[in-house]
Amino acid sequence: MARSPECEHPQKAFGWAARDTSGHLSPFPFSRREVGADDVALKILFCGVCHSDLHTVKNDWGFTTYPVVPGHEIAGVVTQIGNNVKTFKVGDRVGVGVMADSCKTCDACEQDLENYCPKKVFTYNSPGYDGTRTYGGYSDFVVVHKRFVLRFPENLPLDAGAPLLCAGITVYSPMKYYGMTEPGGHLGVAGLGGLGHVAVKIAKAFGLKVTVISTSQKKEVEAINRLGADSFLVSTDSGKMKAAMKSMDFIIDTISGVHSLLPLLGLLKLNGKLITVGLPEKPLELPIFPLVAERKLVGGSDFGGIKETQEMLEFCGKHNISADIELIRLDEINTAMERLAKSDVKYRFVIDVANSLRG
Amino acid sequence: MARSPECEHPQKAFGWAARDTSGHLSPFPFSRREVGADDVALKILFCGVCHSDLHTVKNDWGFTTYPVVPGHEIAGVVTQIGNNVKTFKVGDRVGVGVMADSCKTCDACEQDLENYCPKKVFTYNSPGYDGTRTYGGYSDFVVVHKRFVLRFPENLPLDAGAPLLCAGITVYSPMKYYGMTEPGGHLGVAGLGGLGHVAVKIAKAFGLKVTVISTSQKKEVEAINRLGADSFLVSTDSGKMKAAMKSMDFIIDTISGVHSLLPLLGLLKLNGKLITVGLPEKPLELPIFPLVAERKLVGGSDFGGIKETQEMLEFCGKHNISADIELIRLDEINTAMERLAKSDVKYRFVIDVANSLRG
Repeated sequence: MARSPECEHPQKAFGWAARDTSGHLSPFPFSRREVGADDVALKILFCGVCHSDLHTVKNDWGFTTYPVVPGHEIAGVVTQIGNNVKTFKVGDRVGVGVMADSCKTCDACEQDLENYCPKKVFTYNSPGYDGTRTYGGYSDFVVVHKRFVLRFPENLPLDAGAPLLCAGITVYSPMKYYGMTEPGGHLGVAGLGGLGHVAVKIAKAFGLKVTVISTSQKKEVEAINRLGADSFLVSTDSGKMKAAMKSMDFIIDTISGVHSLLPLLGLLKLNGKLITVGLPEKPLELPIFPLVAERKLVGGSDFGGIKETQEMLEFCGKHNISADIELIRLDEINTAMERLAKSDVKYRFVIDVANSLRG
Repeated sequence: MARSPECEHPQKAFGWAARDTSGHLSPFPFSRREVGADDVALKILFCGVCHSDLHTVKNDWGFTTYPVVPGHEIAGVVTQIGNNVKTFKVGDRVGVGVMADSCKTCDACEQDLENYCPKKVFTYNSPGYDGTRTYGGYSDFVVVHKRFVLRFPENLPLDAGAPLLCAGITVYSPMKYYGMTEPGGHLGVAGLGGLGHVAVKIAKAFGLKVTVISTSQKKEVEAINRLGADSFLVSTDSGKMKAAMKSMDFIIDTISGVHSLLPLLGLLKLNGKLITVGLPEKPLELPIFPLVAERKLVGGSDFGGIKETQEMLEFCGKHNISADIELIRLDEINTAMERLAKSDVKYRFVIDVANSLRG
């Protein structure tokens, strides 16, 4: 019989876990492995609350193993390093994103695309190479292989910087891969949540014209005045949607629920690209005529490799880009999850982990 | 009141038309315009029977205006040229494809992408700039603007070459645009009909490894021995489909009916591209997980511009590529359409127009 989470490793750890599909989180004593020769341990100071955390605690995607400690936007400081670790030292400001490990030998890993490694180990809810499950950043500390540790630029705050490790790279990577980084291109950002609001900031830093596409008229003022979008389209306003047809080169679709692609495809010019980074749990309807008649494409993208994530952090440091956050305590997480389910957050909850666990 | 098709233009013409959604074709006297200064008239010798012709005569897509004379794989000889025509002379072996005209001033036209011109004029079932409707190549002659006349390389036969003007360019153009022309890449061709069998030949000439994906086991021997495919996958054989997962760089999906994209997406490697050139009349189901998890894309492509069509003809001339055809007479067209609906043709019907109309 497998040992209990509290006893399977030598280091005592503490976090908050969901035990069942209610998704309710509560205190959870568990354990972490010793720091191996290639490992880095970090004290977790902050952890972003990603929409994936919500999907996972409720088992929306069908592959949650309980108990699950979510959290893959982890920021903290190095507390211990293994003998083979030369690039980090105790006290460094670092983070861990969506992955905690990968095979390091496959084609994807060799191309610095560990995020597409078939044997990658997610930061939580994933079997690790030692046979135990991974637990995420809603906890006091974490031990990971040095390859999966990211360094924060000096000017990036750890609290508002933490969400870049998932939300940031998830929108940055497709901008690079699908050729959206030429100044002057027109990008639509569909959905203005955790991913969308960072997409607006990064796209503006690349010099793109940015239009936010949202169901919620009330987000317009903020999108333009606070986030720097050039324009705002309410997707339910058929007149304005029609007027905006064939105006955009690209759309990043961050909508995580089932939705219609047809109106978004209509906004694209000839050769336009609609890139989906949300993960609706059911297939979407794909109309073929607009794809064929105007040589459009629908593509996907899944966060990013470690090298590109570090590049994204440097880019965000250079352009002073971080997330707009609401800082919460760990014991406020269940309320935060309820609000996240209603998109009632501007724009990312970040857990003040260390202060929540103190004393 | 608009004048009758027989009287609206000064030149008497004769073809076969469908009058209603039965799709039944019968003799049809009509008329063609005089040859203008920029026009070329050609006597039609051969015309391919495209699956679009079948969709159109039956009004499957909902935008057929009857009577309709189909045919947009037209091959023949120049019989008359306008005063401004310098690049063609009487007797030249030429063809007309899917388009007969375009605006010539929009961004698409200026990029030699007349096929994406919003005001393009299709060779049949389309309003022309003079307000009359266009009639296609199931007829004795045609008059078109010189820009839309293609020249056949000397070694290409006009009968087996005619289908290249739609089937050929429709698969050649996405190979170029989506980067499939590097030798060694692995292309899946889904559907082995008029488009698919030409795709196999063109892809082999580019040096690709080609796997045909078909529902019909009985096509295997021909696909490999006659068309030159490297391998053959029966899409209903789940064992072989599973074994072939993640083996292909690209798929050209020529299937014109509603079908599932999920098994095709599964055959693609990381960064794989599934390009649809068929036109199912209903939306397809698009599963988002495989798109995101392996950065795949589903794209479209719609025949090609005139410059690229000419390039494709030169390429096919150089590599001795033409369609495999069954030559029929015009009065056999209704039977041919019934057989086409059942995919009972190897691989393209071509009408021997001039010999059908003689005497």
